[in-house]
Amino acid sequence: MTDESGLTYKRAGVDYDRVDPLKIMAQQAALATADNLHAAGLTEIAASRGESAYVVDMGEFYTASITECLGTKSLVADRMHEITGKTYYAAIAQDTIAAAVNDVITVGARPLTIHAYWAAGGSEWFADEQRMTALVQGWQQVCQDIGVSWGGGETPSLAGVVQPGAIDLAASCMGIIRPKERLTLGEKLRAGDAIVLLESSGIHTNGLTLARKLADQLPEGYATQIDGGRAYGEALLDPTILYSPVTEALFEAGIHIHYLAHITGHGWRKIMRHPASFTYRINALPPVPLVLQFLAEKARLDLREAYGTFNMGAGFAVFVPAHQAEHAVAISERLGVGAYRAGVVEEGPKRVVIEPLDLTYEGESLHLRA
Amino acid sequence: MTDESGLTYKRAGVDYDRVDPLKIMAQQAALATADNLHAAGLTEIAASRGESAYVVDMGEFYTASITECLGTKSLVADRMHEITGKTYYAAIAQDTIAAAVNDVITVGARPLTIHAYWAAGGSEWFADEQRMTALVQGWQQVCQDIGVSWGGGETPSLAGVVQPGAIDLAASCMGIIRPKERLTLGEKLRAGDAIVLLESSGIHTNGLTLARKLADQLPEGYATQIDGGRAYGEALLDPTILYSPVTEALFEAGIHIHYLAHITGHGWRKIMRHPASFTYRINALPPVPLVLQFLAEKARLDLREAYGTFNMGAGFAVFVPAHQAEHAVAISERLGVGAYRAGVVEEGPKRVVIEPLDLTYEGESLHLRA
Repeated sequence: MTDESGLTYKRAGVDYDRVDPLKIMAQQAALATADNLHAAGLTEIAASRGESAYVVDMGEFYTASITECLGTKSLVADRMHEITGKTYYAAIAQDTIAAAVNDVITVGARPLTIHAYWAAGGSEWFADEQRMTALVQGWQQVCQDIGVSWGGGETPSLAGVVQPGAIDLAASCMGIIRPKERLTLGEKLRAGDAIVLLESSGIHTNGLTLARKLADQLPEGYATQIDGGRAYGEALLDPTILYSPVTEALFEAGIHIHYLAHITGHGWRKIMRHPASFTYRINALPPVPLVLQFLAEKARLDLREAYGTFNMGAGFAVFVPAHQAEHAVAISERLGVGAYRAGVVEEGPKRVVIEPLDLTYEGESLHLRA
Repeated sequence: MTDESGLTYKRAGVDYDRVDPLKIMAQQAALATADNLHAAGLTEIAASRGESAYVVDMGEFYTASITECLGTKSLVADRMHEITGKTYYAAIAQDTIAAAVNDVITVGARPLTIHAYWAAGGSEWFADEQRMTALVQGWQQVCQDIGVSWGGGETPSLAGVVQPGAIDLAASCMGIIRPKERLTLGEKLRAGDAIVLLESSGIHTNGLTLARKLADQLPEGYATQIDGGRAYGEALLDPTILYSPVTEALFEAGIHIHYLAHITGHGWRKIMRHPASFTYRINALPPVPLVLQFLAEKARLDLREAYGTFNMGAGFAVFVPAHQAEHAVAISERLGVGAYRAGVVEEGPKRVVIEPLDLTYEGESLHLRA
């Protein structure tokens, strides 16, 4: 258990016990609307409900869609701007798009279009030319890098809803699953499959509430130097890796992807995201980014808290037949994204067993579905 | 001009002069990403950029997508809850979905799927069972009413970004344009077309900042009685009309829809949303909802301010061949949505001429495109 004086995620202000009942009520209410597609001659892929993107059968192909938000990482960018005078909104743009794109690809989709949702606390947010130029150019650059079309967006000023000086950033993404065999939901995952973990660049977009609380407790706050000589706040703002070039390359190379998981809230518990009961045995760990090492140590998180909250170096999990694991690793590495053959899927109760850490997460520690 | 002591929209805190440069910079940056669709063998409909929904050619059909937000209407619901103890979040759910759906249908799309974006100021927002049940059930009911599938959503807690106790509500919507001839962008609009205006139920989701400022100035605030004996706040919360059943019925009846405009920010100036130069001559006015009559009078808005900001009884404009106008009106009325053959499209400089009010909005008063 975490030291009583340490920071658990709940004490840092995010209470999953409170959020999840709404999610489940909403999921059940949403499910009841599924048949409305029939009048248009279409059907949904029911297995996509509760997954990271919603899939509709459009005949010759599937579409996948998602809306995702940045969360509170922009608050770190705002504080760091006060300290360094630099703007970090190009990185923040990448984080926001990554939150959506890294979700939509989990169903086997190729991302096609992005919509921006930038809701500011007042119209003066948009008058800061340095910041707004960084956000726009960063957003554009990521779209070019991953080959999606930025289709439009919404830029409201919401004084009274959004905090003064703050911005609520989100992105929605539509993707295409073509050929339909690319769909990575349902029955493909099996015992014996290899678990390939793709490196993270740092905290990505989950766990920021706790990371911000820690900054408040450090005498030098975000300016505190971490190993490697960088400021804690600067390292937190390393932008999220986009995994769509890797998944596209894997599909093109003929890798039989059986499942994909974006490792976000709930940390490594997300490895058991698939609805079936399997045991996910991890026997090799990717290196932990310095900023997450620092965070876990200074917030006095035990390993269970740390790996159950943060990505700890693994931002994405790819499940492939064992004989294709090394090939998959090589493809990812060639694209500059570190990859690790980290474990294996086994018959057994739903749980993640991290052998090198002597740590097990039981299935009931992850509540995602109604 | 508006009386100096009255409330203009700018003085109420929404400064379109500040917002629009970002919109234009973002639109130009977004445009440069359009060719990324080619690698997937797809193309966009360039004419949809700057319109209310983004359209992609998927081969046998088009898709249309949009993200839209509620704005600040939830703050009225929160204040009215303090006064009456009632929850208004079923109506707020309808408003949020309507903001997205009434946009996506403007390109000729049939709405298919909705994603919810509910970003709260803290996880305690989701612990209020009455409110959260109303939001979920209201959201579901609207999806059933208009025949869309609620595909999923995102319910983050964003303390520090969203105000404590507040919620930032948005919806993204995907629709299908099939057959492709339904596309209502581009070359169809012509001189001689009739302008059919569909009634609004009240303020809908635009102009709430000003409406809230007015409440602060009234001695009895939202509890002030308006004509008809209802409280001002209660009347503001009449939910937005969903126009998709009307547009679907018009298409099914063989009405040749030439263009569609959702009348939102900029009020009746949105009637000249089409990129071409036409003069839009209005010769008949729909009745003004009591709450908008009250608002315009108490905020001492002149007619130019009022019709240039609020929907003033017309939530949606349908442009059809003159000989089909009466048929279109009848179809809408049969569905319970009041409709008015209000004017005609003419050759001439881009402007909206409201003859009964002796009021003209020039084209340069509406800046939507790069």
